[in-house]
Amino acid sequence: MSEPEKIEDIPDESAGKGKGIPNGGNAAKTKEDFDLAAIYVSDAQYNRNIYFDTSPEAVRLYLRYNHWLPQVLLYFFILLDLSLAVFEDPAVIPLPSWATMLVELLCLLVFTIRIVHYAKVIPREKFWKDAKNICIIVIIVLTLVDMIIYGALKASDYDGVRWSRVLRPLLLVNVTEGRQLRRAFRSIRNALPQIFYVFLLFMFSLLIFSLMALKLIGKRGLTTINGSPYFTNYLEIIFDLYVLVTTANSPDIMMPAYNASYFFAIFFILYILINNYIFMSVFLAVVYNNYKYHLKEEVRQLVRAKRHKMVRAFAVLQDQREGREPAVNQANWNQLVRLVQPDVSNAHRELLWSVCDNNNQGHIGKVAFVQLADLLNIEVITLKSRPHPLQSLCPSLYQSAPSRLLCKLVQHRAFVIVYDLIILVNAVFIGLDEKNTLIANSEWAFLSLYLLEILLKLYVFEPRAFFSKHSFWNWFDTIIVISALIATIINSSMTSAGIYTNRQILDIILILRVLRLIRVVDSIKRFRTIINTLIRIGPAILTFGQLILVVYYVFAMVGMELFKNKVKFYGNSSDPAKAYCGNVLLKGTDFAQLNYCKNNFNNVVSSFILLVELTVVNQWHVLSSGFAAVTHVSAKLFFVFFHIIVVIVIINIFVAFVLEAFFVEYSVDKSHLQTSLEKKIEELELAVAQETLEDNLVNAMETIDSDQGTGQSANNKPTLMFKIASKRYRTVDALLQRMFESDLDPEDFAENDDQNGNFANPAFNAA
Amino acid sequence: MSEPEKIEDIPDESAGKGKGIPNGGNAAKTKEDFDLAAIYVSDAQYNRNIYFDTSPEAVRLYLRYNHWLPQVLLYFFILLDLSLAVFEDPAVIPLPSWATMLVELLCLLVFTIRIVHYAKVIPREKFWKDAKNICIIVIIVLTLVDMIIYGALKASDYDGVRWSRVLRPLLLVNVTEGRQLRRAFRSIRNALPQIFYVFLLFMFSLLIFSLMALKLIGKRGLTTINGSPYFTNYLEIIFDLYVLVTTANSPDIMMPAYNASYFFAIFFILYILINNYIFMSVFLAVVYNNYKYHLKEEVRQLVRAKRHKMVRAFAVLQDQREGREPAVNQANWNQLVRLVQPDVSNAHRELLWSVCDNNNQGHIGKVAFVQLADLLNIEVITLKSRPHPLQSLCPSLYQSAPSRLLCKLVQHRAFVIVYDLIILVNAVFIGLDEKNTLIANSEWAFLSLYLLEILLKLYVFEPRAFFSKHSFWNWFDTIIVISALIATIINSSMTSAGIYTNRQILDIILILRVLRLIRVVDSIKRFRTIINTLIRIGPAILTFGQLILVVYYVFAMVGMELFKNKVKFYGNSSDPAKAYCGNVLLKGTDFAQLNYCKNNFNNVVSSFILLVELTVVNQWHVLSSGFAAVTHVSAKLFFVFFHIIVVIVIINIFVAFVLEAFFVEYSVDKSHLQTSLEKKIEELELAVAQETLEDNLVNAMETIDSDQGTGQSANNKPTLMFKIASKRYRTVDALLQRMFESDLDPEDFAENDDQNGNFANPAFNAA
Repeated sequence: MSEPEKIEDIPDESAGKGKGIPNGGNAAKTKEDFDLAAIYVSDAQYNRNIYFDTSPEAVRLYLRYNHWLPQVLLYFFILLDLSLAVFEDPAVIPLPSWATMLVELLCLLVFTIRIVHYAKVIPREKFWKDAKNICIIVIIVLTLVDMIIYGALKASDYDGVRWSRVLRPLLLVNVTEGRQLRRAFRSIRNALPQIFYVFLLFMFSLLIFSLMALKLIGKRGLTTINGSPYFTNYLEIIFDLYVLVTTANSPDIMMPAYNASYFFAIFFILYILINNYIFMSVFLAVVYNNYKYHLKEEVRQLVRAKRHKMVRAFAVLQDQREGREPAVNQANWNQLVRLVQPDVSNAHRELLWSVCDNNNQGHIGKVAFVQLADLLNIEVITLKSRPHPLQSLCPSLYQSAPSRLLCKLVQHRAFVIVYDLIILVNAVFIGLDEKNTLIANSEWAFLSLYLLEILLKLYVFEPRAFFSKHSFWNWFDTIIVISALIATIINSSMTSAGIYTNRQILDIILILRVLRLIRVVDSIKRFRTIINTLIRIGPAILTFGQLILVVYYVFAMVGMELFKNKVKFYGNSSDPAKAYCGNVLLKGTDFAQLNYCKNNFNNVVSSFILLVELTVVNQWHVLSSGFAAVTHVSAKLFFVFFHIIVVIVIINIFVAFVLEAFFVEYSVDKSHLQTSLEKKIEELELAVAQETLEDNLVNAMETIDSDQGTGQSANNKPTLMFKIASKRYRTVDALLQRMFESDLDPEDFAENDDQNGNFANPAFNAA
Repeated sequence: MSEPEKIEDIPDESAGKGKGIPNGGNAAKTKEDFDLAAIYVSDAQYNRNIYFDTSPEAVRLYLRYNHWLPQVLLYFFILLDLSLAVFEDPAVIPLPSWATMLVELLCLLVFTIRIVHYAKVIPREKFWKDAKNICIIVIIVLTLVDMIIYGALKASDYDGVRWSRVLRPLLLVNVTEGRQLRRAFRSIRNALPQIFYVFLLFMFSLLIFSLMALKLIGKRGLTTINGSPYFTNYLEIIFDLYVLVTTANSPDIMMPAYNASYFFAIFFILYILINNYIFMSVFLAVVYNNYKYHLKEEVRQLVRAKRHKMVRAFAVLQDQREGREPAVNQANWNQLVRLVQPDVSNAHRELLWSVCDNNNQGHIGKVAFVQLADLLNIEVITLKSRPHPLQSLCPSLYQSAPSRLLCKLVQHRAFVIVYDLIILVNAVFIGLDEKNTLIANSEWAFLSLYLLEILLKLYVFEPRAFFSKHSFWNWFDTIIVISALIATIINSSMTSAGIYTNRQILDIILILRVLRLIRVVDSIKRFRTIINTLIRIGPAILTFGQLILVVYYVFAMVGMELFKNKVKFYGNSSDPAKAYCGNVLLKGTDFAQLNYCKNNFNNVVSSFILLVELTVVNQWHVLSSGFAAVTHVSAKLFFVFFHIIVVIVIINIFVAFVLEAFFVEYSVDKSHLQTSLEKKIEELELAVAQETLEDNLVNAMETIDSDQGTGQSANNKPTLMFKIASKRYRTVDALLQRMFESDLDPEDFAENDDQNGNFANPAFNAA
């Protein structure tokens, strides 16, 4: 599932030549040429590494393959396939097995169509060399086999196990779009050997300490708090001390020995110091170190592959000029950009051209052309400094003295402070008892205040700017307030109509009310910085979310087969079996005493929640002992295994990622390309004031609009302004590349490989 | 206690000039000159930053101040002062208060003498400007005042509180030798502002979630497992959710809500994701980032200060030569090195000279001279390839065929493997029941085998090389085996004499037996690498040990005053009060039910163990609730405060340090100076084979001795060989400097400051 993927599987130059595509001379470029070049650029921009066929039919198929609709559909069917677990036995909502299997067949059909489509796009021998294609085919075939066996068993009234369900999340990893996820899996696999040696050493230390505990403490005839013998069984000691490393049974495991003598505390403190603090730090260090190292290598290759693709696009579009370097002229370039990214405005495209063609030559060489993919990835916000619609409608009113005073008031710092205070008062009111009529009615007052705020802001600021794509807090505010208004109106109309008040609606109103308070964070600059950093690394964290989903799903499937219905939850019933979760084997265990009956593997939702609890680690020994009690001692291995994989490996990689992303955010200067783009914007006097770059967009809007609102707008100001959303990344890859940019040579675009005539696969040389 | 210390408080050039010290001309250097230069070099070598007076008397006093004896005495008295807590009420071993106060007076006297000595060494105005001196004086005065008040109260039969005990650990921080510790405190203080903002944001998130929990869940009328109302008190919810961030009450705190509805699980999972995973990673990131940044700055200043001192030493010893750069000749240099480090062998000194004086000019300039401090810090092991003493005694026997065969056998890889197997068998035997006579007697067999191993090795290898300073495992082996032999003999003679077998002796024997097994680790190269890294960063970790000691001591003192004797431990008595730890307020609490009675603040040892348990975090809410139950709810603040300081700040700094140290160890190349020294060693053909540099010393010994043992020792090989213990650091500072060496300019030795005539304090410019 995480086979070493050649991330630079891009078409060979010779393949292009072989198909007779003009790569020299000044022949007019055909539509096919532009399609091909556009695909190269778009692949470079999004770091797609698909070795597609360059024949016009294949290119057309490839364009369709990359269309957003089939991609969304694919993900929808993967999610549908995964969510079948909700309806299959053991089910949250039971459905007959023929229904779920019919849906699964439909999903399999979609996956097959997708893979066939893919097979038509890329050359046959490449298709069969790629591990992820084979993986998908094997998953489809195995699932079919499993369904047939299960159906046959079912028909003959035997119980079958749907074992192929474990394979489902692997589809998420192996579809072509799962690049980030595959990379995360690769970084785990690369770190494994080193983690393994540290883990062995850790196990050795664990065994030595267990032996010492057995001999030193086991002989004393001590008993635990339940009266059972203490530290007398070697295997149990190993498990107990392993649990101690996760701190879950501290200090309980120490107490009997500590009660017997102060000196035994030294044993445990030494153990915790060595195995918990030292070894766990070393795990993090090893994981972090490997992660950084391999990621750097991957990103390096990614950048080389990207430059290759751009060079190839250049080769397609270049004009051969006698005695001079080949170049691409502006007309072709324009058409290319229009094809690659139709939503780029003309002004923006001209700006990009002027960055590339710095000397106004009307054509650009290879070096300048190669930048295009990165340039397109830099988000340039085109600020149209439009006048406020009210100003256009009735300028006299909007420009009148009271109106201008109002604008000034709303833009004043005090306005923000007043509303922060209102939010704080609101927080207190929420905390108070809502049975009180005064409090209940105050909600209306607060709602109107918030609505008033939004309306005032809309009066002062240009509405389209106010609701621009990047004004996170404006959107947040408006959605929350409007939703709260609607929900409150529904609720009061239901109450006044004498209908029973719906608990859910009340809950939603309450959540919306509390969420409103979060707005305060945006007023304090320090907080905004931290929050913005978190929002920025958010998409990358989602990759880890997928990773966790895959691992959880596999463990949930296995866990459900092993432990389903061994532990029962009785809810509010007064069944005496409730005290021991419906399984007499649990009588007297901590599991039953702590009322953990709902922590079970009886359906996929319970399983996932239980796995979250295991990830949080605390009390996982009680849970594992509980499930061991109802099955077999070896069941503990399932839980230990989960702990090693999720907590020691994945969580550490997650922490490593957050650390690295934070350091980059803290210390990074804008990248080379962004700076050259910004320089150009400034040169052309199109820039929004520098300090606003640091601030969020709403403030930038304010600066512009206030100039206009107060009529001081100088006429020599261009009506179109640019601003680089320098801290946003369109793709996770861009964040990663930025992470390691400082180590990459900007001039190295694999020219060497070009000269060697070996153009296709830098990784083969690198390896 | 952690005032910004000017780490570059070194004497001003002008001060030296003022005292009439010859700093030019070819006048013969006096003993005073050499003393002064030696102090500068030694200060540079050990990064001491003391602004001492340069008058001959002050220099003599300063030499005495730096002598090891008063330093050891000072630390002894600090430890004595700290350990008084064992004997003071609440005491482990009660002593009358006049006895402890007498000892404390003695300690104060020693500290006073030391500070007076220091005051005589450095200029008066510098003394009073230094916060750490004032700190020490204030501590001494306050302690005296406290003792007088306490004595007076005691005499008039009132109860007094010895509040000045909290100040004791601050002495450890503020003595001149506590450089590392002060640096650790500084790095914490520097990180605090940033941590504070993240913490505020975290608290905001905690408050918002608590409010939501109160409104969403508190209204449902749910009860906890004990039947008490669930999530109805806002303050309790905040505490519970704070505890959940530490994972200590997961999943218990969730269970009542989860049992009521699946949807509440989403609330808790979101909470854990945001506050536990995201925020805790951000804390680590912020701490790590700050730590790295400030440490770099400090080390940079440290290096500048060091170079300043070396330049000053150079100024004292230089010969003014017409029209040429001043230089230091070899004779003066030799005398200086002999004075600074008397234990350096002549050969080693000549090697160092040839590194400095690369062109054999007989004198060295400033640039070469400045290296001396770093060169002295590189540990060069002088390997005298001596013949084995037995060879000298009876060469015919030692060179005979059987003897040579024996040598070959012992040096063979199989020898190591055989002994590893023996150790494994031994491990199994230790695990088996020792009541069995066969097992009991086997111990003698194993002991003899281990003894035999050591004797064989001593036969083959030169004994002084075998027991050289760096042969950690040889020392380890021998000490363990000999101790085990002695303990076993004592034990059996006692048993055979019919005396009751002492449990302690048996325990010691057992521990020694188990420790023997650790030796296996050394046989596996991967493990050896990890262990060696850990051993190398060990001394630096000790600084954190001191840091923890200081914080623990303060918290233990406060905790003892707040909570002493509120909870009692009854041991094996059958007193019914045992069930509730002697305090009826604890009846029915988790604290009593989990039998945590011995986790109390009734003496300093219990307090420390309790604080370790709190550091491990698990169940800290049960402990804090217990102590809150016997005093007041606000007592929980003590525990929360401890958690914030120790777990969020200090442990994170510890992890950051281990991470950084590990990365350096993994990735570092040998530093510039070491390489030049190594180059010289190789040039002079004095090097031990390169690959042995990587390996541990025993193997290096083997290579040499086997050459000689088998008589193949070529006569053209020098009898003296050098080897750089490249991976060892004499001082923690050296490790730190190496950490950031790549960012430091080797040529920058503050010449600029020199030219500006402002020589003394680079930090004033830097700031």
